[in-house]
Amino acid sequence: MAAGLAVVLMSGGMDSAVCAAIAREEGYDIAALHLNYGQRTERKELEAFHALADFYQAVQRLVVSVEHLAKIGGSSLVDEQMEIPEPQLNTDRIPNTYVPFRNAHILAIATSWAEVLGANAIFYGAVQEDSSGYPDCRQEFIEAYQRVIDVGTKPETSIILKAPLLHRSKAEIVQLGASLGVPFHLTWSCYQSEDRACGVCESCALRLRGFQLAGIEDPIPYIRKPWYAGSVTKQS
Amino acid sequence: MAAGLAVVLMSGGMDSAVCAAIAREEGYDIAALHLNYGQRTERKELEAFHALADFYQAVQRLVVSVEHLAKIGGSSLVDEQMEIPEPQLNTDRIPNTYVPFRNAHILAIATSWAEVLGANAIFYGAVQEDSSGYPDCRQEFIEAYQRVIDVGTKPETSIILKAPLLHRSKAEIVQLGASLGVPFHLTWSCYQSEDRACGVCESCALRLRGFQLAGIEDPIPYIRKPWYAGSVTKQS
Repeated sequence: MAAGLAVVLMSGGMDSAVCAAIAREEGYDIAALHLNYGQRTERKELEAFHALADFYQAVQRLVVSVEHLAKIGGSSLVDEQMEIPEPQLNTDRIPNTYVPFRNAHILAIATSWAEVLGANAIFYGAVQEDSSGYPDCRQEFIEAYQRVIDVGTKPETSIILKAPLLHRSKAEIVQLGASLGVPFHLTWSCYQSEDRACGVCESCALRLRGFQLAGIEDPIPYIRKPWYAGSVTKQS
Repeated sequence: MAAGLAVVLMSGGMDSAVCAAIAREEGYDIAALHLNYGQRTERKELEAFHALADFYQAVQRLVVSVEHLAKIGGSSLVDEQMEIPEPQLNTDRIPNTYVPFRNAHILAIATSWAEVLGANAIFYGAVQEDSSGYPDCRQEFIEAYQRVIDVGTKPETSIILKAPLLHRSKAEIVQLGASLGVPFHLTWSCYQSEDRACGVCESCALRLRGFQLAGIEDPIPYIRKPWYAGSVTKQS
């Protein structure tokens, strides 16, 4: 029954939680990997990561600081001086929350750790639809990276890079997660605040729209919700 | 005449110094990038990096700590508890100085910085012949990584990944460097010690054999030299 060991990239967000659920459903043991790249909401995301790793009985867990991404700069996610933009859904614009080439760093760490552990899969929760035009969230990027893994690791190493959510809508991910019993109340997606989700940053907007279209109530607390997300919670 | 801006990966070793010379020869301005991944000889390598960046009039320089590689583990280069192996040249064995998939991390950082700076090239001093079987030092890895850069960066970004030493022997690199006036006395290659090079680690062995075959004296001080490297310097 055991499919082997899978490194699951777990930001603490809902997508990676659904990825963990899929990995378990496929029979993998989970090696839970979390990256701290200096984002504003890291404390809350790390808390979510540990809660999810506990929930999915991770057999290994690793938290890696990649704050050198902040040093390289170029992103409002890692620069408190820059303003987080209001969301602009359904545009091809690349927002200034973009850390250039970020996912290549994430996958390099996942691959190195997978090779050290002898894991045979990496689960990666990239979602093309809500990638805001990030070029490193696309099918062709996943395929190109699989090739780099194949030629860049030891001959006896065989690691498959799985991105099971890539072509799903946020609403489909919510529905799939609900069917797999994902504890959405343990997840965190907001880029902006840590006690209650802001409800207006791009990540909140995508999440809330996904839950709304799925017809499921998002269990985490929000400061405010946009008009399309239904009932507004009490202002803090 | 200016070819643009090139990110040059500069460890402080002789290969990357020759890369910098080639980039200048081709008309590029240099953005000098050094990575500290927790290796034993980092102090000496960083000193060599700054000396070389000064020599080549780097217009940008960045030193990035990637000590998370040590956390991922699996290598004697980043674990002082493990013994550095004596060199075994001309074997296909992958030595335990291997940091799994290390070059993918290095290239991710170079690419992110290149994209931030608007650089149009990355110079990378990988040498297949002396890669000790590292799978991420081969032509097919470079080609696969170029594809990842092409699909993983913004549409308006165009970065060519250059590995001009990949198919050269160490002796050819020494000769090329000498013809380009590379200040070899400023470079450092030893994995093991910082005041005088040990002369016996794999990196020293490859370097010394290269100088010997090129018929050029290596200007840096050694504690001892193997039989094939000619005259032995005074023991410290």
